[in-house]
Amino acid sequence: MSDSEKDRLYKIRHSVAHVMAQAVLERYPDAKLAIGPPIDDGFYYDFDLGVEEDGKPRSFSPDDLQQIEKRMRQIVSGKHEFNYREIGTDEARELFRNQPYKLELIEGLLEGGTDEYGSEVDETPLLSTYRHDTFEDLCRGPHVIDTGQIRPDAFKLLSVAGAYWRGDENNAMLQRIYGTAWNTKAELKQHLQMLEEAKKRDHRRLGRDLEIFIFDEDVGPGLPLWLPNGGIVIEELEKLAKEMEDKRGYDRVRTPHLAKDALFQRTGHLAHYTESMYPPMEMEGVRYYMKPMNCPFHHKIFDSKIRSYRDLPLRLAEYGTCYRFEKSGELFGLMRVRSMQMNDAHIYCSEEQFEQEFMGVVDLYQDYFRIFDIDKYVMRLSTHHRSGLGKKYVDDEPLWLKTEEMVRRAMKNGGIPYVEVNDEAAFYGPKIDVQIWSAIGREFTLATNQVDFAQPARCNLSFVNSKGEPETPICLHRAPLSTHERMIGFLIEHYAGKFPVWLAPEQARVISINDSHNEYAQRIVQELKSANLRASADASSERMNAKIRQAQLMQVPYMLVVGDREMEGDTVSIRKRDGARQNDVPIKQFITSVRDGITSRSAQL
Amino acid sequence: MSDSEKDRLYKIRHSVAHVMAQAVLERYPDAKLAIGPPIDDGFYYDFDLGVEEDGKPRSFSPDDLQQIEKRMRQIVSGKHEFNYREIGTDEARELFRNQPYKLELIEGLLEGGTDEYGSEVDETPLLSTYRHDTFEDLCRGPHVIDTGQIRPDAFKLLSVAGAYWRGDENNAMLQRIYGTAWNTKAELKQHLQMLEEAKKRDHRRLGRDLEIFIFDEDVGPGLPLWLPNGGIVIEELEKLAKEMEDKRGYDRVRTPHLAKDALFQRTGHLAHYTESMYPPMEMEGVRYYMKPMNCPFHHKIFDSKIRSYRDLPLRLAEYGTCYRFEKSGELFGLMRVRSMQMNDAHIYCSEEQFEQEFMGVVDLYQDYFRIFDIDKYVMRLSTHHRSGLGKKYVDDEPLWLKTEEMVRRAMKNGGIPYVEVNDEAAFYGPKIDVQIWSAIGREFTLATNQVDFAQPARCNLSFVNSKGEPETPICLHRAPLSTHERMIGFLIEHYAGKFPVWLAPEQARVISINDSHNEYAQRIVQELKSANLRASADASSERMNAKIRQAQLMQVPYMLVVGDREMEGDTVSIRKRDGARQNDVPIKQFITSVRDGITSRSAQL
Repeated sequence: MSDSEKDRLYKIRHSVAHVMAQAVLERYPDAKLAIGPPIDDGFYYDFDLGVEEDGKPRSFSPDDLQQIEKRMRQIVSGKHEFNYREIGTDEARELFRNQPYKLELIEGLLEGGTDEYGSEVDETPLLSTYRHDTFEDLCRGPHVIDTGQIRPDAFKLLSVAGAYWRGDENNAMLQRIYGTAWNTKAELKQHLQMLEEAKKRDHRRLGRDLEIFIFDEDVGPGLPLWLPNGGIVIEELEKLAKEMEDKRGYDRVRTPHLAKDALFQRTGHLAHYTESMYPPMEMEGVRYYMKPMNCPFHHKIFDSKIRSYRDLPLRLAEYGTCYRFEKSGELFGLMRVRSMQMNDAHIYCSEEQFEQEFMGVVDLYQDYFRIFDIDKYVMRLSTHHRSGLGKKYVDDEPLWLKTEEMVRRAMKNGGIPYVEVNDEAAFYGPKIDVQIWSAIGREFTLATNQVDFAQPARCNLSFVNSKGEPETPICLHRAPLSTHERMIGFLIEHYAGKFPVWLAPEQARVISINDSHNEYAQRIVQELKSANLRASADASSERMNAKIRQAQLMQVPYMLVVGDREMEGDTVSIRKRDGARQNDVPIKQFITSVRDGITSRSAQL
Repeated sequence: MSDSEKDRLYKIRHSVAHVMAQAVLERYPDAKLAIGPPIDDGFYYDFDLGVEEDGKPRSFSPDDLQQIEKRMRQIVSGKHEFNYREIGTDEARELFRNQPYKLELIEGLLEGGTDEYGSEVDETPLLSTYRHDTFEDLCRGPHVIDTGQIRPDAFKLLSVAGAYWRGDENNAMLQRIYGTAWNTKAELKQHLQMLEEAKKRDHRRLGRDLEIFIFDEDVGPGLPLWLPNGGIVIEELEKLAKEMEDKRGYDRVRTPHLAKDALFQRTGHLAHYTESMYPPMEMEGVRYYMKPMNCPFHHKIFDSKIRSYRDLPLRLAEYGTCYRFEKSGELFGLMRVRSMQMNDAHIYCSEEQFEQEFMGVVDLYQDYFRIFDIDKYVMRLSTHHRSGLGKKYVDDEPLWLKTEEMVRRAMKNGGIPYVEVNDEAAFYGPKIDVQIWSAIGREFTLATNQVDFAQPARCNLSFVNSKGEPETPICLHRAPLSTHERMIGFLIEHYAGKFPVWLAPEQARVISINDSHNEYAQRIVQELKSANLRASADASSERMNAKIRQAQLMQVPYMLVVGDREMEGDTVSIRKRDGARQNDVPIKQFITSVRDGITSRSAQL
């Protein structure tokens, strides 16, 4: 999508949000308005409808949504102009006198440092509004020229969800209406189809149905248990990572899952990252923390002997488990969890080696993307923001600027597409999030690649450079396969549970036509297993078609039907997951062709 | 060793302990005596020598030990008889009026339930003493007939260590003298040589020298960090376990490292095992514990769907990390740590399947022992003790008796050598510790195999049996490769750091005779790596002999020397770690033979 197209959609969505607020106010004149920004793929607006008789917040009914949407189409058809004006403090307070949330936002604007959504900004914005038809909102825009630019058949309200004012659970619970808006009816339709498809591919449902993982009430939220099928997918991913890392000169280490507070004090995690950490455990008067990241431990390994420039780059990899506290309300399937096993590595190198190492990581990403048929991705460079220095960011602006520039240069030299986002860096340096799109076009943030200029110095890491002097290494943090949790969550959706053969928990199921073929079926399974294929026989008393249906449900790539004819010829009849059939294939031939596909990690059946 | 030989050594060691106490009392008439039992390979006695001027406990000097040992030889030569007598309460109190620790033990004996060492026993022992020469001790024996049965050249005092009275750090710190005693001078010599050899093979020293693991002050005690070489050994062990488990029908799962208190309440860990657990962490008002064992989680996976008798046995394996609190004073290298990655599995089966599954596990042990050249092992069956029912043991004696008998029967039917130890079971059932002896004859307790009749019922686990009725499965807990920590600690000593090729972190090092051969050396390394061998080239400017010495220090099994002749012939000259040499071997030939040895996990070079 070009920038101008993005701007256009942004304006449409922002304007539809205003139109929705108007329709809501007409239906509920006492509704209090909070904020209503455009977001990826759509918009939302938060409302306070007061409380029910039982004291619970009043919400929108499905009928409300329908009526509001209907009224929005009428408003849109009126071709109302959006008009901008700046207003004085007194007028603003008068205009929004019945809107306490707006009044709070106005005070924030007057104090400076926040915008009309309550987000931190550099400048002190002017007080301004946008008005269309009967509705005027505290707003800096931009908007479409008039509602005629909004197609009445290109937007839709999607859902209602509770949301705390300013995201703080101590504040009032508001009612958020989510909607989506596009240029054309066709675009909307495509988007709704994608959402529908995403629902079918929901990793939470498929994860349970395909027996990949479960959650358990007694274990706790955000702590998935991987069932045997999940165990297989995990081991295949680890095997892949090991192969790729071996080729690229990584060393694999293992480090403890907890450490004394002293370690996290030294690295800066306690100063900048405590909110995401588990509470400490005290043993023998010492406070221990579960690790939120692996880096402090890898730094210790770097530091375990004297390093020379000849030892660099040193690439320490570990599929390490990290522990991060997320509020239970923010947990989401495998995508947002409280403990995660990460495809982590830290590359220690000199400044001269930085660009080559950085591009080596990018190259590794691209190799993975090819294997997983991910053809759309973009790197998102998150930089620091001056206002966070000494708070969420290490307090050394010259180094921030220098490092950010190093990353930009490396990206440009390598011809890597990237976008830049302010104020989302890691506390120790700029972060490169890699966003990828699944087969149905849904966006995921998976991998990260971070440049750390702060921790090595804080941990007194150094190597002897070629001049014989001590020098502080740069550290790259990278996790191209993300965490097992997030990666497998993504892959389930990406493949709709139809894993490529090398990843499939069960690669072949032998289906006997009746009991007299069970023994032959077992023999075939043994042959498959000897060839290191994951196979089983369905020797149940079900009819063949029921057995095939069962295997289809579990997305087994190959069903091998055996009956009298196959027994005679020492063959199998193949039914592939995609419906293709091939009769009377000699078993050796089947094994050879499947093994080839597995070795090359082919996506084809 | 036969039982009568063991009895004989027990008596000798017990008697030497008394002789030592006499010698100590002669040298320090005010010394207070605690206890002095025989132990494996020797004996100790704990003394309280009062405090120094600075308030610290007075200890024994090396000179003390020498003088005490000298005096002991004199006493022994006196051929003093050991005489037993029962004594009355008043006489006992009078006899030991200056020995407060003995008085405390006497009170314990009178109350019943403890013996003269303060250990729990069933009966109420009589008050009795043993006297030889001038020394009389509270004691039930047995002892040798007279000190003439002790060879003056067959015992030795080894060391002094601090030890708390009754093992409780709130009590006084006593001085423990350790000694060893044997039948003959030759036996003593052999034992001292073994200790000397064990010192050279100390896994803590070799672990550091061979860059296998480190500890770090900031991380904390008992939490090893595995360096790249350790990472390789770990991965090889996991690969081995995976192969063996795949062959035997195990499924591998992964489970969280922590859970709500609710889970550990249900399994009984909080009631019976809290002392060994980390303190809880509270999040959103819920207490979470790091897992001390993997079983509760595997039970949850068993319980995640309806199981039929057709699904059993279900064998769930996981190299899971467990967390156990050990006092820092009790930590020891890799042998006693606070977090351990365990070669764990839980086998769920019916009662009829028990014996076969149990023997399958024993069989697996034996396969591992063959691979690691462990030729001496014994199974130690730990049973419950009635006094612990409802405390450290689940309160169901009939089930204890039944399960213990099932295990005995299985061992006998399988012809497995075992010894039985009372009062050391797991809280949920009898425990089979597998004790093995390293190459130098040191004993290690590595693997365990436990029968759990309690947890499955507590967790409401059940399967539908062939009659269509719900039935509770038995659970076998097994960990034949122990934990990575303990296993690798053992292997380092067992092999004295000379790992067999398949386990060796670096399998071959190519050594160029001078700089002109470096390029060829690199080419050889590439060929070795392509054949999946772990190899590097030493391209430093050191002389060849220095390079060889360096590789020898790191116990690299194959050093491949390359010079002009080898370059011309496309060969290498092999120097094996054991000193053997073979010149001008074609590189392909070397690779083939090494690969064969690795595939078969051969112990030979």
